[in-house]
This record gives sequence, structure tokens and C-alpha cells, in this order.
Amino acid sequence: MKANKLKEIWSKGGCVLNGWLSIPCAFSAEIMAAQGYDSIGIDLQHGIVDYQEAVGMLQAMRASEVTPLVRPAWLDPVHIMKALDAGAYGVVCPMINSRAEAEQLVSYVRYPPTGIRSFGPSRALISTGGGNYLGEADEEIVCFAMIETAQALERLDEIATTPGLDGIYIGPADLTIGLTGKKYPPGFDREEPEIIDAISRILRASHDAGIKAALHCGSPAYAAKAAKWGFDLVTVSNDVRLLAGAAAASVGSFRSLMAEQANEPKNEKGSY
Amino acid sequence: MKANKLKEIWSKGGCVLNGWLSIPCAFSAEIMAAQGYDSIGIDLQHGIVDYQEAVGMLQAMRASEVTPLVRPAWLDPVHIMKALDAGAYGVVCPMINSRAEAEQLVSYVRYPPTGIRSFGPSRALISTGGGNYLGEADEEIVCFAMIETAQALERLDEIATTPGLDGIYIGPADLTIGLTGKKYPPGFDREEPEIIDAISRILRASHDAGIKAALHCGSPAYAAKAAKWGFDLVTVSNDVRLLAGAAAASVGSFRSLMAEQANEPKNEKGSY
Amino acid sequence: MKANKLKEIWSKGGCVLNGWLSIPCAFSAEIMAAQGYDSIGIDLQHGIVDYQEAVGMLQAMRASEVTPLVRPAWLDPVHIMKALDAGAYGVVCPMINSRAEAEQLVSYVRYPPTGIRSFGPSRALISTGGGNYLGEADEEIVCFAMIETAQALERLDEIATTPGLDGIYIGPADLTIGLTGKKYPPGFDREEPEIIDAISRILRASHDAGIKAALHCGSPAYAAKAAKWGFDLVTVSNDVRLLAGAAAASVGSFRSLMAEQANEPKNEKGSY
Amino acid sequence: MKANKLKEIWSKGGCVLNGWLSIPCAFSAEIMAAQGYDSIGIDLQHGIVDYQEAVGMLQAMRASEVTPLVRPAWLDPVHIMKALDAGAYGVVCPMINSRAEAEQLVSYVRYPPTGIRSFGPSRALISTGGGNYLGEADEEIVCFAMIETAQALERLDEIATTPGLDGIYIGPADLTIGLTGKKYPPGFDREEPEIIDAISRILRASHDAGIKAALHCGSPAYAAKAAKWGFDLVTVSNDVRLLAGAAAASVGSFRSLMAEQANEPKNEKGSY
Amino acid sequence: MKANKLKEIWSKGGCVLNGWLSIPCAFSAEIMAAQGYDSIGIDLQHGIVDYQEAVGMLQAMRASEVTPLVRPAWLDPVHIMKALDAGAYGVVCPMINSRAEAEQLVSYVRYPPTGIRSFGPSRALISTGGGNYLGEADEEIVCFAMIETAQALERLDEIATTPGLDGIYIGPADLTIGLTGKKYPPGFDREEPEIIDAISRILRASHDAGIKAALHCGSPAYAAKAAKWGFDLVTVSNDVRLLAGAAAASVGSFRSLMAEQANEPKNEKGSY
Amino acid sequence: MKANKLKEIWSKGGCVLNGWLSIPCAFSAEIMAAQGYDSIGIDLQHGIVDYQEAVGMLQAMRASEVTPLVRPAWLDPVHIMKALDAGAYGVVCPMINSRAEAEQLVSYVRYPPTGIRSFGPSRALISTGGGNYLGEADEEIVCFAMIETAQALERLDEIATTPGLDGIYIGPADLTIGLTGKKYPPGFDREEPEIIDAISRILRASHDAGIKAALHCGSPAYAAKAAKWGFDLVTVSNDVRLLAGAAAASVGSFRSLMAEQANEPKNEKGSY
Repeated sequence: MKANKLKEIWSKGGCVLNGWLSIPCAFSAEIMAAQGYDSIGIDLQHGIVDYQEAVGMLQAMRASEVTPLVRPAWLDPVHIMKALDAGAYGVVCPMINSRAEAEQLVSYVRYPPTGIRSFGPSRALISTGGGNYLGEADEEIVCFAMIETAQALERLDEIATTPGLDGIYIGPADLTIGLTGKKYPPGFDREEPEIIDAISRILRASHDAGIKAALHCGSPAYAAKAAKWGFDLVTVSNDVRLLAGAAAASVGSFRSLMAEQANEPKNEKGSY
Repeated sequence: MKANKLKEIWSKGGCVLNGWLSIPCAFSAEIMAAQGYDSIGIDLQHGIVDYQEAVGMLQAMRASEVTPLVRPAWLDPVHIMKALDAGAYGVVCPMINSRAEAEQLVSYVRYPPTGIRSFGPSRALISTGGGNYLGEADEEIVCFAMIETAQALERLDEIATTPGLDGIYIGPADLTIGLTGKKYPPGFDREEPEIIDAISRILRASHDAGIKAALHCGSPAYAAKAAKWGFDLVTVSNDVRLLAGAAAASVGSFRSLMAEQANEPKNEKGSY
Repeated sequence: MKANKLKEIWSKGGCVLNGWLSIPCAFSAEIMAAQGYDSIGIDLQHGIVDYQEAVGMLQAMRASEVTPLVRPAWLDPVHIMKALDAGAYGVVCPMINSRAEAEQLVSYVRYPPTGIRSFGPSRALISTGGGNYLGEADEEIVCFAMIETAQALERLDEIATTPGLDGIYIGPADLTIGLTGKKYPPGFDREEPEIIDAISRILRASHDAGIKAALHCGSPAYAAKAAKWGFDLVTVSNDVRLLAGAAAASVGSFRSLMAEQANEPKNEKGSY
Repeated sequence: MKANKLKEIWSKGGCVLNGWLSIPCAFSAEIMAAQGYDSIGIDLQHGIVDYQEAVGMLQAMRASEVTPLVRPAWLDPVHIMKALDAGAYGVVCPMINSRAEAEQLVSYVRYPPTGIRSFGPSRALISTGGGNYLGEADEEIVCFAMIETAQALERLDEIATTPGLDGIYIGPADLTIGLTGKKYPPGFDREEPEIIDAISRILRASHDAGIKAALHCGSPAYAAKAAKWGFDLVTVSNDVRLLAGAAAASVGSFRSLMAEQANEPKNEKGSY
Repeated sequence: MKANKLKEIWSKGGCVLNGWLSIPCAFSAEIMAAQGYDSIGIDLQHGIVDYQEAVGMLQAMRASEVTPLVRPAWLDPVHIMKALDAGAYGVVCPMINSRAEAEQLVSYVRYPPTGIRSFGPSRALISTGGGNYLGEADEEIVCFAMIETAQALERLDEIATTPGLDGIYIGPADLTIGLTGKKYPPGFDREEPEIIDAISRILRASHDAGIKAALHCGSPAYAAKAAKWGFDLVTVSNDVRLLAGAAAASVGSFRSLMAEQANEPKNEKGSY
Repeated sequence: MKANKLKEIWSKGGCVLNGWLSIPCAFSAEIMAAQGYDSIGIDLQHGIVDYQEAVGMLQAMRASEVTPLVRPAWLDPVHIMKALDAGAYGVVCPMINSRAEAEQLVSYVRYPPTGIRSFGPSRALISTGGGNYLGEADEEIVCFAMIETAQALERLDEIATTPGLDGIYIGPADLTIGLTGKKYPPGFDREEPEIIDAISRILRASHDAGIKAALHCGSPAYAAKAAKWGFDLVTVSNDVRLLAGAAAASVGSFRSLMAEQANEPKNEKGSY
């Protein structure tokens, strides 16, 4: 089984740059996988992506150097085990609100006797290089719990110290809503002191528990700041935002230039 | 049948801003259609898109204000007629090299007695608002011939004056290769004098023939310049380039920021 | 965020006419959406439809005036939240048998602090017109609980009074089986007194609780009768039955006409 | 190789009832195949269907008694040979305008030395029952040429007498446009004398040439009339029209009933 | 409703030969269904297959004589009920570890009053031959619980005696891991005495409870041995292993022959 | 651009072992690509595969060491250019019957001035490693013409000497039918003297023209023999035959063992 690149980066003290996929398309995944991310997560929760499409995306990313992660839609064995059998090297499970849920999460990701993952890595045997998958998968696959509610924050330490958990992943949009309701607009890259404080607490609790901390970010600048704070993995935006943002910028730029030109005489072929 | 927005824009002397889709995905098409383009072309030639996927893209774009165009893979009645039946408001046909080919193109797009298009607009009846499709489609649908070889350039006037043709569309990448072989790197937004000259000739010949001229561009700046020259439609980049460019820029920005930070002490939680 | 058409109809005292989709196809959904329904539900429970196909159907219906609803396969956060993120304006959840289940249902549909819906309306942001989705979605999206077992009927009032629930939806096929086992053939448009009585009780209990009542019907005649009884939404058949019924009628009509003609001399070209 | 049911019906002097599929969906095809048609054609020309989807439709229809036909998009070996390899028992080729085109059509359908069909019936070997496919396919597969232009009508006899051709198929919509331009609204079931005359001529010419005649119809009544005239195969409407028609009728019926009820007091629960 | 072939075989004392599908493809399913299996299971747990693809596979297998089974991904009503509505004649549910879970399983498979299956066999009505599906499905559909953990083995008798359960299905790979951790390499066709003993116990307990016993095997030889022991159904390998094994053998054979030939003079055209 | 592995093997005097894909599935392609072939061809002619599915297969094979080839459905620029843009490293074009057709084939595969390939390698830029694709593709991509008719055999030399052609590929099934009609059963691995003679002539003519010769084989043994004769590439069976063959053998073996056991006492649990 090929080694998990994330563990290699962490062993050198580095911070993983993670991409994020919400467009249900193997070709856009292949494009994203060619841009230099260390790992890329397929979002089966909020992405417009279901299992079968995710398999095509995993296949299209395999040739690149990118480590494939999956965010399952929920703490559900179906989604988690199928993603792993399809070749994911890690899961980022949303809405973990208690130690019991964190333990369930770990149990779905690990084979007995640690967990209850059922054996049948149909694609993973091929895509991870085969070999001793049963013997090595528990070690190579990383398992992140997302903390994104007030309840989860209260139980931060009991979650972070769950045996077998590799890290805590912060979704700032949900965390903000969970802590402050609809007080602030949704989004990443929070600057509100109480949210910063919560993020900071999660970071410390993770490291205190000897596990990794990850943050979903909206911009390279914020992500770099997060890396400086000590985050071990930062996700920087997703394909939807990148595409929509670039297209909107291109359209806006053209419209602005045209408006400027509107004052000048049109069809100035002479100046061609 | 809903009116073709392109014709409305042209009737006011405006220049159409056209987007371009090469990713085979209805959701990315829906995203693109929400960014402010006047029209969007689905590239069935070089895009990683075939007919069935293109239908889903047309469906996903229908709710927006965007006029759907299609570039068929080749001058082939199958591809052109199927695209029109699926609801396209225009075709941009590659590699038209002679008057005979231009006439064939027109004949595939128009119903008898003008052309030989077969009647059966299964989806177009719904998506265009129905009504008198047979009576209005020939008028509403626009038909562009691409000129992109040395041979086509020689026969520019005979192509441009083909009855029923609505415009000439320039693909600068192929045109450059057609005229100069592998002398220059491929791409849009040409600055070589002999290519500029060819583009200029096509623009003039189109307008002299009373038809429109369109240019495939790589940047808003070049497109605005083209609009100033008199082009009636400019395409600005495609979804692949927009996504890849934005992702690469984001990764690059993060890596640069990290390199800068590498000189500073890491994990400065105190400064959080 | 575009307003939910159902609420507008209800505010005027009207009865919503709802269609139903079980065929996994965006094009048949687009056809159905053009026939004049107020809303159309995609059946992810008994329909031959899964999430990814449902997205295509939602995209194909978006351009019409039809409000998109979804029946998730079960009371499961994965299915409900993904449907909402994909742009559904309402959910009709099967097999709600207790107050606790009704509360879970509501919690999956509403954002904190009301519920536990996770934020990430990837397609809904585009398809609903964007804007303040977080602030408005809880208000615009309607949430129906299906009552279709003996147990649920017993707990009717406690279910109907669940805070945040918008209505009760009756599935007469399951309700009949739930109440009387295999005594009667399955189907809608029940005429058995004990089933009529149960339907009537649910209607009253819903209105007593200040919420809406909806009935799945098999014919326009029964649906109109239900509207007269006071139902606020009636579903009239689904695409499978409409297609199969129309095709069978067409085949039957032809076979009958041919049988009649069999007594007459065949190939009477003279009479042509 | 299982015998072609069409030939059996014809051997008894019967008229084949053919259905027509334009919805790209295996499940709607499976529904249609259960309604009693003798054969069903998949429309790869005007249907919203491409090859890969058509294969799923052929698979879904295989268990029924229905003989699968395909209308390829055009006279093109790719489309015709792939349809046959996928298990079609017949092709209905659009827009055959000359003897030369009819000969090409036959050549694509038959193996050498009669034609130039390439051998590789990957799915047909399974779906037709295997056995001596090479030896029997030329005999079992039926090949129809569509006559739908003025030019084709002029060359009717030379087309009808093409060796190896099994029949002429009339598309009344295109034929009407081909003969009279936009004089009449498009559609089937023509009653205009000049169109009736053309249809009649084609019927006679086919039978004079010893081949079959088929007519695309819009209603069972017209189809039965056509059978009486002597047509050997009649197609009665397609899935799009059947579905749209049934849904529109259902909606219309409900709206009418509601309008009637509007004069009566609403919510008359007492009368329940 | 067509009778379940498995019950017919068992009524004659026979052992069912079951195939297994993990490749998400209707055509490979159609190929497999033509090879002589009595039944074929689609693996929605470890197979790279999700619901929508499974429907296509069920459609492609329908014309064959093969009885379609489904292994749902988990004990989850969504997956089980949707598989049955899509036409499965049996379910093989993984990871049943207690009487309560076995009872849940049965309840998802049977209609009230026995169970809680919701009525709406959209495809099953067509694919099973229709008729009295509600009245007969509970009798025809078979329901297997998989025993594959130490806990389940301890509770063997209470599981096997669950009313309504038709059989126990043994997954030797998981059972081995469940009983002995990573002591042995994963796989079927176990020879370790403690595993043989567990298999033997399950076989006896099933028969003592009056239900069937099934074993997942890796080779015809082991399966025949299992049939001799008394197993009522044996699964012999899956499409992935069959394809990979045959391809690897073909490649290996060619490479060996080439290595042998390497010692001989190459390009011996004379000997041609 | 990554180098074409075929050219490397040939430069060392080796014979390429090529696999063949007719199952429309990315996962079965990924399985096949892991079995040790040098190259694998996707059969868009007789395979049940169309462009969009082929793209998924190319993506799934990319991570392996296998060189991807494509057999387009016909000598048609649409199919050939789209396959190349999708990342194919070679095309095997069926039914080349003249020098003119061979020249057309070459022209579709090469950029100007050699050919008329249009520039837009949307996926190939990523999958081949990018770099100077325009400058290197003409050199790296191999172009095979299939000779499989009597006419082609007559014009063997004029075809083989077509400038820019890399090799001749023999399809023995069609060649046999082309030369001898239905005299022999279809298939590969011919032993009839006149077919052997034709194969031998093609091999010699190819080498005399300085190009490669390839043979489609049905077994490793015949392929090894062909390699000895001097063929530069041999294809050994396809996924359909491998899967069907392995499954049939497995079923047959089980049935035989069961028949043997039938004479012995059944249910001999004692011997367990």
C-alpha cells in the first residue's frame, strides 16, 4: 500500500495544502489534481456529488500526486466504508458532537479488532498499490472529526482524545452558525473574536491530545495565517468558488473595459 | 419561440460576451451561466463533452438569461441537427474551408426549402418556449462558420457571402497553426503581425458581406480590444482555463506566503 | 431567495396541484414541468431515482414555474440535507411515526438554532436566486411529514403539533396497508369508509394544529374532491402511471380498431 | 439467433404496431416495452438519446416481447453499425434521397459480400440468443429507408427497388415540409390531399417493389386507417407525446374541476 | 409475480449457484447473467456500485433466467427497500450482530403487518411480472442475514431463529477477521480449523432453525465441497476477480511464451 | 509530453502486448490496466462504448503504466480527433480500403502542415504531462490502419506506404469474412491457409514499407506465435471474452463437480 502523503508531510512538520471538490465531474477533478495541492477532498456532504460520481473523480485524480480524501455526507457507515473501499486515504466526517460519535467514526474507519470496518477494498486494492491492505490501511488512512456545533465545542476534549482519531477539522461556516446562529453572514475566514477564540481552542485541544488540526479556509492568505498558527492542514476554497470567482472576474473585467471604451469612438479599425 | 438574445444585442450595436464550456458537467455549466455572460457555447469539438452530457448542460443553463450555443465537433449533420433539436440557439462550426462546406453548414441549420434540416425539435419545442418553432427557428438560430486554415483564408470572400450564413468565427489557435505551422506556440490573443493581419481581413470581409464577426479570446483585455476593432461577439476563455487558472493561482499564492513565513518562527500561537 | 410559490398559493386560500416523478430522467422531468403543475415532487423513496439523477431533474425543472419538492427515501439527514442543498423548496418525509421522529425531521430541514441542518447550499445558492439563503431558507422551505401507519395515526396530534412542521402528507397506499394489512388492493383514491375516516381525521388534525394537509391522489377527480374537503395540496399521479396509462390506452385503442376492421376487407386501397 | 417478430407478423399478413422512444431513459423504455407494442424504435435522430443511453434502453426492453428497432441519426456507418452490434433488429434510416444512398444504407446493414458491415456483435451475440449470428443476421435484421423529401419522392422507384432493402418508412412531418415547405403546420396524421397522395404513392411503390411500407402516425385512429390502406407497420406516437399529453390532460382536468367547484362553497367538510 | 427460482431449487433439495457483481456496469452484468448462474447478487456494499447503476444492472439481467439478489451496503431501510422496489428477489444484509438487528432486517423486507416495508414497487411491478405483488412479495423474496463477527457468532441461535428470516449468509473474509483479527490473510475458501469450525456451526444452526445456509466462496472446488457439506447456496467469486484473474493469466501466459521464444531466433518468417 | 511506450518497446525490438476493452466501464478498465499489458485499446467500433464513457476509461487507466489506444468507430474526423484530445496515444482505424482513405486517416491524426487535426487537446494537455504537446504529438502518437477487406488487401502496398502511417493492424474476423464471405465461422486465430497467407502478406508489406504490423489475437499462444512471425504488436482478447470465459469456466467447473458428487451421499456433514 502506497504511503499516505499527509503523514509524510506531517512527519517533516509541514502543513498540508488541501483542495476541495463540489462539482460532480471526473474531468474537473482531474484538472484540480494537476494544480499542485497536496491532497484533495471530495465533498459528499455539501458538494453536488454522490458515491458513483465520486468514484470517477477518485479515478481521475489517481495519476496525480494528490492524496484523495472524502467528506462523507454524515456519520454513517455506508458512506464512510464505501468511500474507503473506493480508495480514499482519509475521511473528514461532519457534525461529530460527542465522544460516542467520535468513537463510532473511528470504528467505521478501522478494521477489527479496533473498529468494525467490513473487508472488501474492491478498488482500494488496485488504487493504493495493493499489497498488505488489511495490515496497513488502519495505519495509513487518516480520520478527521469535524467540530462545528456549540455542543461539540463543549465536548471538545472528550472528542479530541478519542483513541484512533487522527485530527479535528474545523468548518468555520457551520461553527459560526452553531455558536452565534444567524448573527453573522455565513462563510470562512472568520474574523469575529468569539469565532477566532473557538478556532484557537480547537487548535490547542487537538495538539494537546496529540492529534492534528485542520481548517477550512476561503483564501490563501487566511490559510497561510492558519498554518502559522499551527494548523496541520488547510483547505483553500473549492472548485465551485474558484470557477465562479474566476468567471465572474473575467466577465466583470470585460464589462468594465467596455464601459470605459464606450466613451471612445467604436469600430476604430484604423487603430487596429 | 423566445427571441435570440444575440440578435437583440446586435440590433443595438452591441458586442456579445460569450463564455465557453469544455467540462462535461451540468453543474459547472449552471455555475458558469450565473456569471453574467450574454451567451455560452458548449464545445463539442475540443471540449470533453459529447451529446448526452451537452443536453444536461443545456438544461442546467436554461433558467439563466444566457443564450446557448454549440460548437459541433465537425461539419456533420448528425452533430448539428441534434444540437439544434436539443435547444441550441446557434452553432459555431469548425473547419469550414470552402463555399461548398459553408453551404452544407447552412443547409444543416435551416429547414426546407432553405436547407435540409429534419423536423423534430424534441427538446427545443419546450426549451425555446414552443410556439411556431418551424416558422421561426430559421430566423432565430445563428450560424457561424469558423475560418481557421490557410485554405479557408484564401476563400474568405466566397465563404463569407454564403447565403444564410450569420457570421464568421475565428479560432486563433488553429488559424495560427494553419497559417504558420508550428512556428509559434499555440494559443489565443495573438500579437504576431501576420496573424493580426489575417484576423483583420476576416473581420473586414465579414462586415463587407453583411454578416457578423466573432473572435475567440483568452483574456478580457484582448476581448475588449477586439470589440473595439468591431467584433460582434467575443468569447473569453473557457471553464477549464478559468478553473485551472484560479486553482493554480490559489496554490501558488499559498506556497509563496508559506515560503515567506518560513523565515519567521513557526507556530506563533501567541500572535494569534 | 425566490419566494416559495406554495406559500403564495396558500396565502390566497388555494390548493396546490403537485406532480410526481419516479422516472430517473432530466428530460422527462423537463417535460412534466411544462404541463402546468404548481409544484413537482421527485420521489427518492419509491421512484427509480437517486440523488445524482435527482439533481439533473432539478436542473431541468428550474426554468419552469414549478416549485421543486423532494421525497427523501427515509428520515435520514443525508438524504434530506443533500436534497435541500441541491435546491429543493420542500421535503415530504415518509414514515413519520412519532413526535420524536417529526422533531428529527424538522431539525434536519432547519438551520441552528431551530435545527441542525449543516450550511453549504452549493446549488441552492444559485438555483434559488441566492441572496440571503441562510436567513430565508428556514422560512421558505416547507416540511411535510407523511402519516402512513397505524402507529402514526394514533400519535397524529403529537406529530401534527410538532413545532416547525408545515404539514402532513398522506400516502393512501401505505396508510391503507398500515391500517388494514392486505385486506384491500393497494392504491390511491380510497373509498373504504375506515380509510376515508382516517384521511378525514388527519385533515382535521392538521388544520387544528394550524398546518397544511396534503393528499396523494390517483386521478384529477379524486384530487378535486380532496381539494373541496379542504386539502391544501394534492398530488395527481406520477410520470410512470401517466406514461404507462397513455401508452396502454393508445395500444388498446389501436388493437380494438384493428379487431373491428378485421371483419372488413383488408388493404382497401381503393377507399384511400 | 431469435427470429425477428416483425417477419413473423408479416408472414401472417399482419400489421406491426410500433412504439417510439425519445426520452433518454432505460426505465421509461422498460415501461413502454410492457404496454403491448410489437416493436419499439429508439429515435437516435430527433430523440434526446445518444448511443450509450440507447444501449441501456435496449437492455431494459430485452426481457419484453418487443422487437427493438433504431432510427440512427443519419445515413452514417458509425451510427448504424453500432446500433446493430448493440442488438437492434432493424434500422429506420432518415433522409434517403437516392438509389446510391439506399445502397449505402443496405451495405451498412449487411455483412460481406452483400454489404460492408464490420463483424463484432458484442452485445447482439448475447441479446439475440447468439448462435449463428453471422449467418442469420442479414436475414433477420430489417432495413427501412425513410422517404421524406421532394427529391426522394421523385426517385421513389429507384429507391424502393434497391436490392436488400426491406421497406420504406414515411415520416409525414418532414415529408410535408419537404413537399410544401412551411405551408402547413408540422405534424403527423396529414389530411392534405397532396400529402395523402404522396403517402399513397409511396405505399404502392413499396408494395410494387415487393417490400414493406411503414407510416409514422400520431393517433391510433389514423394508424388503424393506415393499416387498412395496407401499411405493414405503423408507429403510434412516442413517449414524449404520450407523457406530455397525459400530464397536460390530467392538469387540465383538475383545473376545470376546480373552476367548477369555485362556485360552490369551499371546505365543505360536512359533505366529506 | 414470477416465482423465485431459489425456492424452486431448494424445494428439490438443490444447491443454488450464485454469481456476484462488483463492477458498476449493466453490460458486464448482462454478460455475467448469460453464463449459467442460478442467481446473481449485486454487491452494493463492497462493490463499486450504487443504487442507480444497480438498477441498470438489474434491467440488463432481467431477460436472463437469473434470479437477482442485492447485498445492501448496510442494515439501512433506504438501501433495502429501494433495492426491492427496483426488482430484487432477495437481500443479503451484511453485519447482522443481534436478534434486534435481524428483526429490523426482516421488518424492512416485509410489508405490514409482518414488517414495515413501504409500498411502491415502481420497477418490481414490471420486472416481476406484476400481478399481486403486495400479496406475494413477502413470500417470494428471500432475506439473508450475514454473520461475520465474533459477536454475531455468539448470538448465532437467536439470530437464526428470527421469525421471517430465510437464511444465514457467511462472508468468510470478514468472519475470519472478526474471529482472529489480522492473524490470517483475508480471503475466502478458509482452511483454518477455527474458521472451518465457525462455518460448520453456522451451517448447523441455520438448518436447526429451519432456514437456509449460504457461503461466499472463491473457487468452484470449495463451493462444491460446501454444497456437499449441506450449504443451500454458494457464491463463486465475483466479476472483478474473474476478469482480473483471466486477464492476468492471459498476460502471464503470453509473457512466459515470449520468454521461452527469446532463446530461439526471432522473426523466423520462414517457418510461418 | 510523456514518451509513447510503444515506440520505446519497438526501439528495443520488442513486441507490444495490447489489451482490448469493450465493456463501457471505467472500473473494469482500471482493473484491466493493472494486469500487465503494455498498451490497451478502447474499442469504440464494436465495443459497447461511446466517447463519454471512453473518457472515464482513459482517466481510470492513466495511473497505470499502460499506453492508451483507441479504435474509433470509423474513418471519421469527429471520432479520431476527439479521442486524441481525450488523451489517446494512438488510433487503430477500421476499414481502410485505399490510399486515399489512409491519407485521410493520417491527416486527422497530425497537425498542420502534415495533417488537418484541429488544436485543442483539452485533456491530453493534462494526461500526457503537458509541455510541448503541439510540437511532439505528431511524433508520439501512433496511427494504425486496419486492413480487413479484399479490396484493402489488393491495395496493400499503396496503403502501407502512405506517408505518416505507423502501421497496419489486422482484424482477422473481418478479413476472413472480407476474403471468404461466410465460408468459415467468424473469429480470430485463423488457421485456414488462405487467411494465413493474407496475414503473412500484410506482415511483409508492412515491414517492407518500414512500418509496424499488428495482429488481433484470441489467445496468448497464437499471439506468441505471431510475435515470432515478426508482428510488432499483438492484441490478446478483450474484457468481454475474458470475463465471459472465466465465468463460464467457473460455472462449468462447479456444475461438473456437483454432477460427480451426485452419486455420493449428500450432506455428509461427518466428513466436514
